[in-house]
Amino acid sequence: MEFSSKLLENAVNEMSQLPGIGKRTALRLVLHLLKQPNEQVSFLAESLLKMREEIKFCKSCHNISDVEVCEICRNESRNHAIVCVVEDVRDVMAIENTGQFRGIYHVLGGKISPIDGVGPSQLNITSLVEKVKLGGVEEVIFALSSTMEGDTTNFYIYKQIKETGVATSSIARGISVGDELEYADEVTLGRSIVNRIPFENSFKNN
Amino acid sequence: MEFSSKLLENAVNEMSQLPGIGKRTALRLVLHLLKQPNEQVSFLAESLLKMREEIKFCKSCHNISDVEVCEICRNESRNHAIVCVVEDVRDVMAIENTGQFRGIYHVLGGKISPIDGVGPSQLNITSLVEKVKLGGVEEVIFALSSTMEGDTTNFYIYKQIKETGVATSSIARGISVGDELEYADEVTLGRSIVNRIPFENSFKNN
Ligand SMILES: [Zn+2]
Ligand SMILES: [Zn+2]
Repeated sequence: MEFSSKLLENAVNEMSQLPGIGKRTALRLVLHLLKQPNEQVSFLAESLLKMREEIKFCKSCHNISDVEVCEICRNESRNHAIVCVVEDVRDVMAIENTGQFRGIYHVLGGKISPIDGVGPSQLNITSLVEKVKLGGVEEVIFALSSTMEGDTTNFYIYKQIKETGVATSSIARGISVGDELEYADEVTLGRSIVNRIPFENSFKNN
Repeated sequence: MEFSSKLLENAVNEMSQLPGIGKRTALRLVLHLLKQPNEQVSFLAESLLKMREEIKFCKSCHNISDVEVCEICRNESRNHAIVCVVEDVRDVMAIENTGQFRGIYHVLGGKISPIDGVGPSQLNITSLVEKVKLGGVEEVIFALSSTMEGDTTNFYIYKQIKETGVATSSIARGISVGDELEYADEVTLGRSIVNRIPFENSFKNN
């Protein structure tokens, strides 16, 4: 692509670093921004910078938060003995949206995926294992997407907390195997939490 | 969508102002940025701000440029008597890419589209008509997409420059009717410029 402006080229190059945004889409988006009032571009740029600099991850559950400990973890009316393990903040949002879950979360920040170079040490697994070993947790619900990476991650954690005797469950597979959790409809997702099954049962059936 | 962070929500809202980017995609992009080094977000934000503030539109052809008069208009080896009328900078890039055109451009900045509230006064039409009336232009090539809006725009301009007796042509329709110019392959697009036909012939055939 030959650009008539270095400023345009830079903006397109940076925009096309985003996943799923090719050069052509980036050019379309950037040209759109050029037609908007200056403020819109400032708002976009500033909101990204402010977010990147100021956002926090909850010290307890690693959910995205504006404060040290997130609203869910600070909520005394929730059951802190039930911990739902999810991949990222989108899954927290999806489950909260169902209104079916009153426990707390633990956000791993991803799944174990050797192909993508993601090992257990890059995920928030140690803090989960420590939390369970400290006591006070009665049940760990695995709510990762039912992909190979999700299953591997579940099992990796399961092996480390098994000895504590904590109850483990896996969300009911009303959600079709291989589907991303965040795209599930609210009803199915809500039901899959209510109908969760002991984790041992989930892999014995395979 | 319920967000656990106002900073995250703001970034997603601003990102989803972009055309074709829904809330879900915006969330995906923003979460991706959160995982990147701070510099990447800074580079993106700064490239957009810098572009919006410093970019210029060529005084002569309205193409995007970093200087007052763009490289193409400053190029003495190009034929300034042949003016190719295009919708936007992407079309300039597409035609330049073919290597088949050695004239100059005139970027309208859009097409006449009453549905989208775009009238002739919002486009760079007056400056084109003035340029032609000043003399020195021998041929005006219409290279808008062959949509209803493109045809309307071509004809609107044609009526105003007809009296000057300047030659008008329309790029050959090797490009299928209704297709966006920027998605045409180089060979077809290059050929359609070389094989351009007098503008009168293009609408008499309809
Ligand atoms: Zn928390
Ligand atoms: Zn120019």
